[in-house]
Amino acid sequence: MPRQRSDQVKTAKAPVGRPPRMPAPRATILDAAAKLFAAHGFEGASLNDVAQAVGVTKAAVYHYFPTKKDIFDEMMVDLLERQYVAVGTEVNLAESPPEKLKAFMRAQAEFLEANHAAFVVMLHGFGGIEKNHWTEQQLALRDRYEQLLRTLLADGKASGAFAVDDVATAARAVLSLMNWMVRWFRPDGKTRAADFALQYYKLIVSGLRPRS
Amino acid sequence: MPRQRSDQVKTAKAPVGRPPRMPAPRATILDAAAKLFAAHGFEGASLNDVAQAVGVTKAAVYHYFPTKKDIFDEMMVDLLERQYVAVGTEVNLAESPPEKLKAFMRAQAEFLEANHAAFVVMLHGFGGIEKNHWTEQQLALRDRYEQLLRTLLADGKASGAFAVDDVATAARAVLSLMNWMVRWFRPDGKTRAADFALQYYKLIVSGLRPRS
Repeated sequence: MPRQRSDQVKTAKAPVGRPPRMPAPRATILDAAAKLFAAHGFEGASLNDVAQAVGVTKAAVYHYFPTKKDIFDEMMVDLLERQYVAVGTEVNLAESPPEKLKAFMRAQAEFLEANHAAFVVMLHGFGGIEKNHWTEQQLALRDRYEQLLRTLLADGKASGAFAVDDVATAARAVLSLMNWMVRWFRPDGKTRAADFALQYYKLIVSGLRPRS
Repeated sequence: MPRQRSDQVKTAKAPVGRPPRMPAPRATILDAAAKLFAAHGFEGASLNDVAQAVGVTKAAVYHYFPTKKDIFDEMMVDLLERQYVAVGTEVNLAESPPEKLKAFMRAQAEFLEANHAAFVVMLHGFGGIEKNHWTEQQLALRDRYEQLLRTLLADGKASGAFAVDDVATAARAVLSLMNWMVRWFRPDGKTRAADFALQYYKLIVSGLRPRS
């Protein structure tokens, strides 16, 4: 897991003096940075802001993450890896394609809610669309996750459980519903993300046209 | 229409000298700013960048828009007003609720494609979610547009054309599908936005579960 890579950054840019004593320093820094980047955008929060939020010096943050982009990169890899495990486990436990789709949508919503700040950073951390922030590793992890969804939809199509013209379009539709949640879902609201996801599941499975 | 408000800004902060000669200056500035904000984010592009893109001095831009936020505000009001007219007209021309929903999704996709940069600015112009960029006027225009969709869904529910548990959730789902298009749709790609919208329409109306 990326949060255990702390040895790797010591060589090139070692800071002066000893690192500060923090329990789980990398996770602490990532959590604080996620909240700041989610609120103000990646470019609206500095390494200094992160240090202040954690209660250490900028040099202390620098000891673990030489650049702000290093924080972002580790945050994304960590998020995408944990999402794949969390959602994939639920999908694997479900038996039929419809149950797997329901499990996918519910588990992703729960994961979004439990990791709200980092999710906002992933999907809404930057203004504009020109810069390519994503590393090859992150893109591969994102594609692996989408493939999980495409596979269960394709299995449902093959078994006759789903009537799908185009699996890629259906997968994109499901992910659009889930991803746009970062723009309106409030973790402090009275409805859980998983409940919204189940409403979406029912809608996308049943369709708007009445069934006679 | 907001692009005709140019007289209003002359009083408070009139620049020195005469304004530069530009045909349709406000529209020219808004178009250039939309492209810059879409690419780099609102905070990643300056008034100076806008002036350079138009080929005039910063003072010339300042003559029409005292602040960068004024550019954003007029861009959003203009976009939301035109969207309501463009999409609303198509919805009104359609006869049944399913035809109206199809018209809504197709027309919104066409409008997105024709106004891609400003749409990206509206939905993805800022990093982070804390700042409230939206004026009361813009929020009212946004709500009026969503109401257009809710009304046609509610009409379809009342007439029996749609099986909808919750109109607000269904409207949110449709808007999620359409809004997330700013994150992956490419105007220079080989498929038109309206074609993607029609695929989504078919999916959301028919549902994934086969109809016997």
